[in-house]
Amino acid sequence: MMKISIIGAGNVGINMFEALRKKKEIKMVSLFNRSIEKILSHRKKIFITNNINEIKKSDIYIISTNDDSIEKVSNELKGRDGLIVHTSGSTEMKVLSIHKNFGVLYPLQTLTKDKLCDFKKIPICIEGNKNINNQKLKKLVKIIGSKCYNFDSKQRLALHVSAVFACNFTNYLFSIAYDICAENKIPFEIFFPLIRETIEKIEKNNPSKIQTGPGIRKDLNTIKKHLNFIKSKNSKKIYSILTEGIIANNGK
Amino acid sequence: MMKISIIGAGNVGINMFEALRKKKEIKMVSLFNRSIEKILSHRKKIFITNNINEIKKSDIYIISTNDDSIEKVSNELKGRDGLIVHTSGSTEMKVLSIHKNFGVLYPLQTLTKDKLCDFKKIPICIEGNKNINNQKLKKLVKIIGSKCYNFDSKQRLALHVSAVFACNFTNYLFSIAYDICAENKIPFEIFFPLIRETIEKIEKNNPSKIQTGPGIRKDLNTIKKHLNFIKSKNSKKIYSILTEGIIANNGK
Repeated sequence: MMKISIIGAGNVGINMFEALRKKKEIKMVSLFNRSIEKILSHRKKIFITNNINEIKKSDIYIISTNDDSIEKVSNELKGRDGLIVHTSGSTEMKVLSIHKNFGVLYPLQTLTKDKLCDFKKIPICIEGNKNINNQKLKKLVKIIGSKCYNFDSKQRLALHVSAVFACNFTNYLFSIAYDICAENKIPFEIFFPLIRETIEKIEKNNPSKIQTGPGIRKDLNTIKKHLNFIKSKNSKKIYSILTEGIIANNGK
Repeated sequence: MMKISIIGAGNVGINMFEALRKKKEIKMVSLFNRSIEKILSHRKKIFITNNINEIKKSDIYIISTNDDSIEKVSNELKGRDGLIVHTSGSTEMKVLSIHKNFGVLYPLQTLTKDKLCDFKKIPICIEGNKNINNQKLKKLVKIIGSKCYNFDSKQRLALHVSAVFACNFTNYLFSIAYDICAENKIPFEIFFPLIRETIEKIEKNNPSKIQTGPGIRKDLNTIKKHLNFIKSKNSKKIYSILTEGIIANNGK
């Protein structure tokens, strides 16, 4: 039986907690949060605390605080014997290096508390400071039911940067399209088939090979027309920079 | 029986041709292309020509050439009685105004010749210079099996601009993510669940309300880390501009 404590009841922490507490191979022993009010609702399921020294002896301590607090929390756990891991995509493993056994357990998904995730659909990236810790984390991911990827800290940072481009920035572009549609009384749903088609295509191809649109065609007339049409200065700038990028990319 | 000719055997033209020729309500009477070689393979299915004067008398002439040629082709059709339409997202209807009956039939999808599309999944935007032409185009779209939207030229341009943001630019961002992954030996498929989740969310929400990532959190540490990590000057610039946009947008 693997004993686990969760430190930080944010979106990742709560999703991990709810997934792990249902597994027979796992015993959840503590849930820590700085503000106790936020975790009161869980007190019947698990020992809760806002005092880090009260966290029970565990095989794995999962630090799922925000990135800026990881090192501080880690320091407060000094002297603990178990495996200390954080769940951050953009934080190096070595911030935990005051411990003997440490690592990373990073779920590649936007998690929210309101809607618990299905970890079967979520890749988890692991990194351990020793092979034995890699093995432990691999085993834990298997119990969770996620697909496991073994990445070092540089790869994880690359992954996190890529995720910003592939998800955060694309969502932002959708929001620009949404606003233009709203201003012109166009139902945004008209795009759903086109967006789905775009996604299906990138699942089968290198995206740069299937680029379409006025940029890749160097259709300067259309580009000019579009730029004249766009009112927002910000969106105009984004249109120009991305179009330039597509044109330059094509020349490679 | 509606007689139709298609002028321009590009991706849109061939997809329309193949869809329409199977409909019992339609009789395809000519397929025109400047270069006859490109349409020789269709000669058993339909009368083909590269001489615009040989195009047979039709109820609807569909001009599916590239945008720059629409007006020229339209002028060459001067004096024809039927309804003359083009299929371009970013061209105003009025370029066809030398005719009595004219309009637009714009399928909102990236079409390719290699893989014929299923028009049931593709919205088509129509515009006619008279109500009766709107009715005719609406009927044609119904026969094709597509969802029909009645938009004026300004709305169609807005739609086209939005499509560039929602599809062309997002594809380009995927290509940047793909390249970063490739450089760091990360299989791009790791993103498919996250991308699918992003799409499912925007189908239910205003995208600006569900923005995530370091920009919206104003997580300057992570943003700095990411910018240091990105090697390509171009991608660095795009990262900065989009992050600034997200931060500014959040302040609204």
